[in-house]
Amino acid sequence: MRLMTLENGTRDGELAVVHPDGERCCSATDVAPTLQRALDDWDVAEPKLRALASDLAKGSRPASAIQWDRVRAPLPRAYEWVDGSAYINHIVLVRKARGAEPPKTLLTDPLVYQGGSSDMLAPRAPIDCVNVEWGIDFEAEVAVVLGDVPRGTKAADAAKHIRLFALVNDVTCRNLIPPELEKGFGFFCSKPATAFSPFVATPDELGDAWRDGRIHLRLRSELNGELVGDPEAGPEMHFSFFDLIQHITKTRQFGAGTVLGSGTVSNQDRARGISCLAERRMIEIIETGKPATPFMKPGDTIAIEMKDDSGRSIFGRIEQKVVQVER
Amino acid sequence: MRLMTLENGTRDGELAVVHPDGERCCSATDVAPTLQRALDDWDVAEPKLRALASDLAKGSRPASAIQWDRVRAPLPRAYEWVDGSAYINHIVLVRKARGAEPPKTLLTDPLVYQGGSSDMLAPRAPIDCVNVEWGIDFEAEVAVVLGDVPRGTKAADAAKHIRLFALVNDVTCRNLIPPELEKGFGFFCSKPATAFSPFVATPDELGDAWRDGRIHLRLRSELNGELVGDPEAGPEMHFSFFDLIQHITKTRQFGAGTVLGSGTVSNQDRARGISCLAERRMIEIIETGKPATPFMKPGDTIAIEMKDDSGRSIFGRIEQKVVQVER
Repeated sequence: MRLMTLENGTRDGELAVVHPDGERCCSATDVAPTLQRALDDWDVAEPKLRALASDLAKGSRPASAIQWDRVRAPLPRAYEWVDGSAYINHIVLVRKARGAEPPKTLLTDPLVYQGGSSDMLAPRAPIDCVNVEWGIDFEAEVAVVLGDVPRGTKAADAAKHIRLFALVNDVTCRNLIPPELEKGFGFFCSKPATAFSPFVATPDELGDAWRDGRIHLRLRSELNGELVGDPEAGPEMHFSFFDLIQHITKTRQFGAGTVLGSGTVSNQDRARGISCLAERRMIEIIETGKPATPFMKPGDTIAIEMKDDSGRSIFGRIEQKVVQVER
Repeated sequence: MRLMTLENGTRDGELAVVHPDGERCCSATDVAPTLQRALDDWDVAEPKLRALASDLAKGSRPASAIQWDRVRAPLPRAYEWVDGSAYINHIVLVRKARGAEPPKTLLTDPLVYQGGSSDMLAPRAPIDCVNVEWGIDFEAEVAVVLGDVPRGTKAADAAKHIRLFALVNDVTCRNLIPPELEKGFGFFCSKPATAFSPFVATPDELGDAWRDGRIHLRLRSELNGELVGDPEAGPEMHFSFFDLIQHITKTRQFGAGTVLGSGTVSNQDRARGISCLAERRMIEIIETGKPATPFMKPGDTIAIEMKDDSGRSIFGRIEQKVVQVER
């Protein structure tokens, strides 16, 4: 089952079920007005949403064409957005790029940061460029949406708390990171609002590709229409989503609707390309002594997508354009 | 006007208006079911809530005694919890305590971190002690609850986005901070759930004490029934709430219901005591070479309160006890 959220003039939008063709949908507000409300009472909502999805697939419920400019983030606002950095190759490259050492506990202690969650961007929302000198970068990631997760959850028990999957563009102002991190309080100003895929999908939509707490499919990034990366999201995710859930629940519990990201998907094999420009710039520095690729500027576009083995776009496409805005 | 949230079996509780005596209240669900919903449409909700508060004060609306064990955090879950560290004396002492230097931009660039917000603790919720070695500490703070705040808001325009005030106990696992910060991603696991005062208050409740973006009143902390600190929250707040709002909106906007904390209130005058144990321990190290005060242990209690010049407890009391829990 795939779900989405449509603009309806409210803060949280309206819940809809996606047709298997990925081009049509139907409102699900007779089950729950919003995705958050469905997640709040998932055991009740899920079977009703699945029945609706089944009717939609059989044609016994009318479907409307998805109006892509009405598609919002699945959760236009969420109670938590926690983002990991589980791909070791990304950590090593990006830290090298800013002249920082990887942490000593790189392979044993997960990295996660708390992101802002009152304003989650739609898949086609523009990326605001306030100042091109801030170094706008994309970061293509996979994410899970959680149910209630108790404090002290172990990795072995984590699977049952995962409700949905999504794709993420964790937009980053690369040149604001060093001064923010130097203060020791995290990324804060260097992380503008984050964008999400049109659809969220239940685990069964991923089939065998969802195993050992990882999504074993390629994540495609297209910069200005050119494929720049299609790394495997599975094998090199050093800490699985199960490990990340164990880590984040060490000292507190999490409420339904918490979004947990993987961090930038990255493979050691350079033929798989990149999921952020910082990696490409670091590779250029290693190979030629200096970066050649600029960060994103107004007019640049980024598209992020994941296809299953049959070529179906599971989550729909994130498609964002950088636009200059007033300061 | 003062508002509060009562337990009613739902995730967000029910909104109530507080009687001027601070001992009684009445349900406000005919105006808005929850505080978040009131904040979502504040221009409509506020005058209705004020009318209700006026009726309650005049006795033309029945009041019930507040059942303190039914009092929840004003926002039991929120879309953002952003906490500053605006008192320079606290930063200097606490960094000294963990052998870290204050950032070079101490006086020019505010420190804020993004906290978890899907589980905000009630004023009388226990503080879970998973492992006493983690070094449980309290941090007494003041906070504001914001309406929608656009990106790029200037300090001079910030006042109008402040809807409500509250007190905070930003519970901290002091001994988990160094390994978390060493990884460079912020405090994450070192910050368990945060507790809030019973009441939130509109600016007019503070009278002249609310000026220049600061609350000019003393914040009282009682540890195991003994007054350990009553620092002035106003003069030494180096970055005002207006400055903090300008800082956090540098790269993104914030949605209604965002909670923004001041950081631990702290005065240079040692006669004013402490608002967290880390400060006392550092003073002991400076004076005698080693800390004598242990962090909190099961059975310890912390109460946090702020009184106006007439002795009225504006926000009610945070009163928490540390309890041992299973890992």
